[in-house]
Amino acid sequence: MTEHTIAAEPTHSVWDRSLEPRLRIEPGDEVQIECVDASGRQVRPGMKAAEFLTIDRNRIHALTGPIWIEAAEPGDVLEVEVLATRHSGWGWSSVIEGLGFLKDRFHRPYIFHWDLDGETSRSMAPAVVPLRPFLGVMGVARADDGAFRTRPPGPFGGNLDVRELCAGSKLYLPVYNRGALFSCGDGHAAQGDGEVCINGIECPLDVTLRFNLHKSQRLTGPLVEACETVAPDSTANAWVVVETGTDLAETARAATSRMVDLLVSRWGFTEIHAYILCSVALRLRLSQVVNEPVHTVSAALSKQILPDRRLFPA
Amino acid sequence: MTEHTIAAEPTHSVWDRSLEPRLRIEPGDEVQIECVDASGRQVRPGMKAAEFLTIDRNRIHALTGPIWIEAAEPGDVLEVEVLATRHSGWGWSSVIEGLGFLKDRFHRPYIFHWDLDGETSRSMAPAVVPLRPFLGVMGVARADDGAFRTRPPGPFGGNLDVRELCAGSKLYLPVYNRGALFSCGDGHAAQGDGEVCINGIECPLDVTLRFNLHKSQRLTGPLVEACETVAPDSTANAWVVVETGTDLAETARAATSRMVDLLVSRWGFTEIHAYILCSVALRLRLSQVVNEPVHTVSAALSKQILPDRRLFPA
Repeated sequence: MTEHTIAAEPTHSVWDRSLEPRLRIEPGDEVQIECVDASGRQVRPGMKAAEFLTIDRNRIHALTGPIWIEAAEPGDVLEVEVLATRHSGWGWSSVIEGLGFLKDRFHRPYIFHWDLDGETSRSMAPAVVPLRPFLGVMGVARADDGAFRTRPPGPFGGNLDVRELCAGSKLYLPVYNRGALFSCGDGHAAQGDGEVCINGIECPLDVTLRFNLHKSQRLTGPLVEACETVAPDSTANAWVVVETGTDLAETARAATSRMVDLLVSRWGFTEIHAYILCSVALRLRLSQVVNEPVHTVSAALSKQILPDRRLFPA
Repeated sequence: MTEHTIAAEPTHSVWDRSLEPRLRIEPGDEVQIECVDASGRQVRPGMKAAEFLTIDRNRIHALTGPIWIEAAEPGDVLEVEVLATRHSGWGWSSVIEGLGFLKDRFHRPYIFHWDLDGETSRSMAPAVVPLRPFLGVMGVARADDGAFRTRPPGPFGGNLDVRELCAGSKLYLPVYNRGALFSCGDGHAAQGDGEVCINGIECPLDVTLRFNLHKSQRLTGPLVEACETVAPDSTANAWVVVETGTDLAETARAATSRMVDLLVSRWGFTEIHAYILCSVALRLRLSQVVNEPVHTVSAALSKQILPDRRLFPA
């Protein structure tokens, strides 16, 4: 196992499998990854709303990468374990005209700055916001040629905004290209389900990730293994299927159906039992509702309910 | 304070404000309420799918009530505290052709019987399903004349299927008629978000409820005060806004907007701060996705985030 480091810049803000890898690693390696905030250092502490309006939005999400993982090939599964996260004590949240889940109610541009005090922020007193930082964006290069803006997530991961991906959790992604070509960014010190105003607590966030490879495994979209120490009210200690689509009900349906598949293939339930087990124990959450025109739904089953079983054969 | 009891039968399966109250109580009183299973005792332990198909579905949800609460008038808020629940050791879950979230995938009628062993069920080994029983249906008579089947919930409560409503939690409902006319039933020993196959663990469930009245308080829909001991992965120790509508995204939007209102009116946040706080800390869940054509969304904020504050002035 080798430890690597990679600086944030130059960042990139598209998924494009023709991008030159900035780092080459072996499966099993750990990487300390510096990530600037989603604006790519354009937002600074104390910045006012008027100035915020002038930033170049094409630079969002300012990702670090790509990282080439040796031996990774299409049809493999990349396992990304979040070992540690380090915020820098400051973050921001904005409201932008025409964006956000309540855009008909909130028109006026606004920016709020948060002081991050270790494990909480008290900047919006009397609220005490618990911090459990995670990267909003982690993904591999897409299967198709071209340069795609990073807002919509997909089977390749990307802008998932799944708050369970804090230190201790793992993300499994299908590999679509040789070397996988992993990139990440969009640090959030905290985020609610749906990220309703368009931002979580956006922040620079350095992370340590460990990469593992599972050769020739079937996986049709992102799967999260959530640890026991996620933020309050998150889905701790669970298997979480993540689906993205334009219709919220259909997306929730796809996530449910994929969880049924997982219960059948990995735990050996009959299909009908898997369906009923979902009906009595599944958690269905709206992880992201502001990446128009797509929404992201998470379907989770607690590990308390299922016996420990390997996701992939050793 | 007086303690009352009410037997389940005769049950009713419509919301109809002209129904004769079966019990009259004072605010502050406790009531031991017997509730048969949602089928109204038509499903019995060991019943096979073929026989299950012949039950009279018009008898679902077989509610107990109405209960008249003295002094309750339109414009008041009824507080219903769940003090205790008692299942009888057995429950069932079914799959019905043409119903359920994955009805295109699961056509064949099926019924599964669960042995309920105190706090878990191991009937679907190797799964261990934690039990935290609650009533799927609690509501007051609607504001309009007529007899309405009980499947769609609404601002009056009803078929909410919110799993946080276990012993220790409270439900707040707007009152639309003199006496409020509360009814309840549809016991679930466990239920996942969305209740995807169309059932939770359906079971007879006796409950003890305490009723309190808050005079002339504004409340536009169901609000849950979730206790700390809900089922794993539920939203514990939280304020939960419950909204129902035909479009899932619009319903989630309405729930978010109502949470913003609550933060403004009860905690004194500015509107924009309330919106941002939701973006960094709100939990958005699909509580019910099989009550076609409506869906139910829960929006929750942990009490860990907010200082203790009375929901209604004393």
